[in-house]
Amino acid sequence: MRLDAVSKKTVGKIERLAESVIKSVKGRKNPFVEIPIRSLANVHFDKKKGVVQLGSQTQKRYFFNVAMAKKFMQTFLVSDACKELVESGKTTSIRDLYYITKHTIGDTRQNTFEEQDESDPIIEDLEVSLDALREELHLFASRKGSMVGPVTIRDSGDTIDLRRMGSGGWAVPSIVEENVVQLGKHEARYILLIEKDAVWSRFNEDKFWKREKCIIIQGGGQPPRGVRRMVQRLHAELRLPVYVLVDNDPWGFYIYSVMKQGSINLAYESMRMAVPSARFVGLSSFDKDKYELPMNVAIKMDDGDVARARQMLAYPWFADKRWQREIQEMVRSGVKFELEALSRRGISFITEEYLPKKLREKDWLE
Amino acid sequence: MRLDAVSKKTVGKIERLAESVIKSVKGRKNPFVEIPIRSLANVHFDKKKGVVQLGSQTQKRYFFNVAMAKKFMQTFLVSDACKELVESGKTTSIRDLYYITKHTIGDTRQNTFEEQDESDPIIEDLEVSLDALREELHLFASRKGSMVGPVTIRDSGDTIDLRRMGSGGWAVPSIVEENVVQLGKHEARYILLIEKDAVWSRFNEDKFWKREKCIIIQGGGQPPRGVRRMVQRLHAELRLPVYVLVDNDPWGFYIYSVMKQGSINLAYESMRMAVPSARFVGLSSFDKDKYELPMNVAIKMDDGDVARARQMLAYPWFADKRWQREIQEMVRSGVKFELEALSRRGISFITEEYLPKKLREKDWLE
Repeated sequence: MRLDAVSKKTVGKIERLAESVIKSVKGRKNPFVEIPIRSLANVHFDKKKGVVQLGSQTQKRYFFNVAMAKKFMQTFLVSDACKELVESGKTTSIRDLYYITKHTIGDTRQNTFEEQDESDPIIEDLEVSLDALREELHLFASRKGSMVGPVTIRDSGDTIDLRRMGSGGWAVPSIVEENVVQLGKHEARYILLIEKDAVWSRFNEDKFWKREKCIIIQGGGQPPRGVRRMVQRLHAELRLPVYVLVDNDPWGFYIYSVMKQGSINLAYESMRMAVPSARFVGLSSFDKDKYELPMNVAIKMDDGDVARARQMLAYPWFADKRWQREIQEMVRSGVKFELEALSRRGISFITEEYLPKKLREKDWLE
Repeated sequence: MRLDAVSKKTVGKIERLAESVIKSVKGRKNPFVEIPIRSLANVHFDKKKGVVQLGSQTQKRYFFNVAMAKKFMQTFLVSDACKELVESGKTTSIRDLYYITKHTIGDTRQNTFEEQDESDPIIEDLEVSLDALREELHLFASRKGSMVGPVTIRDSGDTIDLRRMGSGGWAVPSIVEENVVQLGKHEARYILLIEKDAVWSRFNEDKFWKREKCIIIQGGGQPPRGVRRMVQRLHAELRLPVYVLVDNDPWGFYIYSVMKQGSINLAYESMRMAVPSARFVGLSSFDKDKYELPMNVAIKMDDGDVARARQMLAYPWFADKRWQREIQEMVRSGVKFELEALSRRGISFITEEYLPKKLREKDWLE
């Protein structure tokens, strides 16, 4: 099978990892893999780039070390399976990879992996060690999300016109790397990432994307990796601004912040997933007055919400004065609002009045 | 706006409901709505039709009755909102409907609805009273799922070729009634409903649907209404058999049974959602031997699993000898298997060997 450029590069990385180990063995040295540390202590917010990033601390995983030998072996089992996947042009789920690499070792009763929670961290180790996203290793996590808009794409050889996707839309796959999905002709002016599928359906049914010439995409709550990577590629390759439309609650703010600068947990992927210039178009805590929402559609914040909001006040990426004011207003009022609350003003209020006004008046947060 | 035939019929039903009340008022009688009872006592399994059905018991909801007045009012608030939706050609989520119909009554502090768990049962009341699916009332619940295969459909005026959907597939909408989605030209021989998205991706990537001429569809676990209705329409209109591929655990069996004969909770929709002739193509409890699965990919059943499996032995729709044998084997062995366990035999074992053999040998349960 002939490999595309992305796959060739990935295979090369895996091979170099293996070669370094073989070299150690031949030199009668204790072979090791060097793995960047993925703990909070090695994560920082790069203010200039606007993303959460992994620092430079690494650890060495040795083969001749009782505490490390199993993980060392697992690392190469997983990398070997990934190499096979990439070379065969197949992709699979991380659950599947666990089954594929699960063996009983020789005549022992020892398994290579007992549970998937053993193989998942090895995948993450490999991602950071090789500087390759899991998608480049041909692995995917669960996916959600759909997309329509004035753009044509190619996916696995099929040309798909996202202007003609009906009410359902194109289901965004988990892996949207360049070797799978290519972006084609478009007339879009911006990208709108919507938190909720039901709200996305409103925007699609009202043909907002046609009228406004924008791409609308949703990820069913916190967008999965496929959707975030898609938004980043649309942003970078088509040079379009990104607007994020979420609920007025700490979870909505969090979704926005992960799209904007990545998350602490997966800091090593920020550069490939985040869009630091993404703009928050609501729902803002001040919109209840601006858009005359009756108080009976407000939801009382619970203790968890309040604690979460207070925590956010301390995040460096929410240090901006306007964000501080925004979060403080949420805490002060003690209430949160769902996007659907706007329907109290009319079923298409959100597509016909709310968002057009937001964009016209540049009433967003960054 | 000109209404299509489906919408006209629905509006007519709502109007007749309202007219019957007006007639009562004019006749100085206590107006009421007659609502079929949706409790277990009024649900039975129709062996001949092969579906779980609602019985004929009804209750009357009176306006002049302190205990019923609020619900009576709510019923008409919801039906009025649905009529507006249908007439305007718009659809919305049941969450949204709650917000749309939430008002504070006059100068009181009484709200029409306090929470969505008040409006949801009213929607169900209305569905059974009017004999109209919520989709016909232009309401949708959350959706999941994707579909590809040798079939062309029309969705909201767009022609969509499901043979050219790339790795993502077409995102199945919540509402797939005839007025939204129409089925066109096809070369499919059968429909394959797959429990898991990750497994569906394997079938799509391996182009199983192309080789086998079948439609593959997944609903991300328990398929949502849109997917079940889609499968039923494909089955009925294209006259294609339906095969269901699920995990070997009680949950997988349950998913199959809901697709086949409906569920107790939503018995009134069985006739529109169920496919009594649907066939179970595994994973069967006997496949561990037949397909030589090593025991280290088995998962031990917990107490909940065992209790659930025992419960299933008593269901009339699992009364068949072969099903009894199937469930008993699961209980006896004390283990369950995920579809991904088949990957232990090779990543494409499921598409190249397992399912082709199942179909060739007619090794399914009904």
